[in-house]
Amino acid sequence: MKSIYDQIKDLVILSKTILIAGHIDPDGDTLGSMVALKIILEKLGKSAEMFSQDGVPENYLFLPRSAEIKKAPLLKEYDLLITVDASDLTRVGDLKVKAKKIINIDHHADNSNFGDINCVELLSSVAEQIYKLAKEFNVEITEEIAQGLYVSIITDTGNFRYSNTLPSTFHTVCALVGSGVIPWQIASNVYDNRTIPSMKVLAYALEKIKTAKNGRLIWSTVSLSAIKKKKANHEDLISVIDYLRSVKGIEIAVFIREEEKNKIKVNFRSRGRANVSKIARELGGGGHIQAAGTTLKMPIAKAEKKVIKTVLKYL
Amino acid sequence: MKSIYDQIKDLVILSKTILIAGHIDPDGDTLGSMVALKIILEKLGKSAEMFSQDGVPENYLFLPRSAEIKKAPLLKEYDLLITVDASDLTRVGDLKVKAKKIINIDHHADNSNFGDINCVELLSSVAEQIYKLAKEFNVEITEEIAQGLYVSIITDTGNFRYSNTLPSTFHTVCALVGSGVIPWQIASNVYDNRTIPSMKVLAYALEKIKTAKNGRLIWSTVSLSAIKKKKANHEDLISVIDYLRSVKGIEIAVFIREEEKNKIKVNFRSRGRANVSKIARELGGGGHIQAAGTTLKMPIAKAEKKVIKTVLKYL
Repeated sequence: MKSIYDQIKDLVILSKTILIAGHIDPDGDTLGSMVALKIILEKLGKSAEMFSQDGVPENYLFLPRSAEIKKAPLLKEYDLLITVDASDLTRVGDLKVKAKKIINIDHHADNSNFGDINCVELLSSVAEQIYKLAKEFNVEITEEIAQGLYVSIITDTGNFRYSNTLPSTFHTVCALVGSGVIPWQIASNVYDNRTIPSMKVLAYALEKIKTAKNGRLIWSTVSLSAIKKKKANHEDLISVIDYLRSVKGIEIAVFIREEEKNKIKVNFRSRGRANVSKIARELGGGGHIQAAGTTLKMPIAKAEKKVIKTVLKYL
Repeated sequence: MKSIYDQIKDLVILSKTILIAGHIDPDGDTLGSMVALKIILEKLGKSAEMFSQDGVPENYLFLPRSAEIKKAPLLKEYDLLITVDASDLTRVGDLKVKAKKIINIDHHADNSNFGDINCVELLSSVAEQIYKLAKEFNVEITEEIAQGLYVSIITDTGNFRYSNTLPSTFHTVCALVGSGVIPWQIASNVYDNRTIPSMKVLAYALEKIKTAKNGRLIWSTVSLSAIKKKKANHEDLISVIDYLRSVKGIEIAVFIREEEKNKIKVNFRSRGRANVSKIARELGGGGHIQAAGTTLKMPIAKAEKKVIKTVLKYL
């Protein structure tokens, strides 16, 4: 039987109209992989559209070709839809188009294998798969392709800090730097774009840190009024959970923020044996063993009590 | 003429007593390189002592063999002293021993070439040089050697974020992960050991951020009384300048902290064309174009005024 990458190659060659779709709330992995894949397809003489329901967040506009990522596809039907970094077809959002064939390229363990071809591997990022695809296609890794893939890898590995950073990740990176990626420039684009309000709201969240069980549990809460008072927005709070997670001796970190009145977003991280996806599921959410989340419809003070009470059962 | 690495090999083989010395205020690069070098020398049948005047900070005690790093050498004279990561012999501190020969292995541009053999290369870290040395010696990179070198590389490159992250850096890392380094475990040891007081004092510093020149200059000050009030120590403040530096649009970041009454430590970072080593020199200090510092003997309020007035001349 042909390898998955051979099968992808065959199907791409047969397709005239191709749509590449990323997932909602797009991150660096889905966006970087999309632009890299588009350029690779072009090298094969194929033109492809790129779709991201939620567009491109400002901090990823530095990505080459990101201006070509659209919030709505041009056609009503495509020969081929290639999803990147989507564990389920619903993750690409409300696509409203038909596709004769679907190729599903993803690296999440819980992928539902919804495609005609499912290329699902437990790697750091889709970037590692797109890199292999380029090799299979005999496409030279240009500087632009390498930039897209490097962004994917660093954003999905926490800049080589998470446990999905594998030997293959660094082998791919060696090839990318050989193709002209300048690591500090990309890292600077991705990480050095904080705003003063984001620093102030981070300070507020850190100031409000609480702990229990001898520091094995750490958490913080930020209300909507505090966010507004600091002139911050919700995106500014995404990294707070990583700070809580980095405290010595913690086993579970929890960040609770009020997105809207009576709509409370909760993030969980585990650094010990505790499985936070179980906790999140008990609270109506989901996720992975070490990173999970949920949304609660209640006042923030009530949510905090409920969440902490639930977490304490697992510690 | 023999290559530098050949010369090092010859001198090591001839030496019976060897001392490896790191620099004062030791960081991950000097400590990681020391332990890696010691193990490499052992593989050649050589025993070597390790000297660090300031010992090993708690957060680096996870390094293999770090318990063997001593604050005072056993002998009064050595056949060979090998310094790692020291741009000048004074950087190793008050050594109080004689050495018949000195090998100086360093990666700083301003190295004073004080050794009999000076192996000075502009690489990410001494780790890249020690790796080359192991190759020259035909010593297999064991897991312990790889761990030491990986710690060196990530600490000196800001975990692959600084401009000293080169293609050769990733090529070395590829070899290290092939030798058993587990990147997330080392990153977790190095980065995930914050304390609650360090978070509180960081919050305080971020809360006190000031800007000038439309955000091109950003700075913060922390007094000794604030540090005490947050139950923090000076080490907790080392990373604050990196947060200030990461704000979008800044050209110069300055962090001013009171180490003792009337003893003010000032850190500068540049992300634009400004040369902060010039600013630091004007204030009696020194450093590199993008990272410099000084110490001022005056009250913190007066120091803040003087520093900001000086910086503004360069913006």
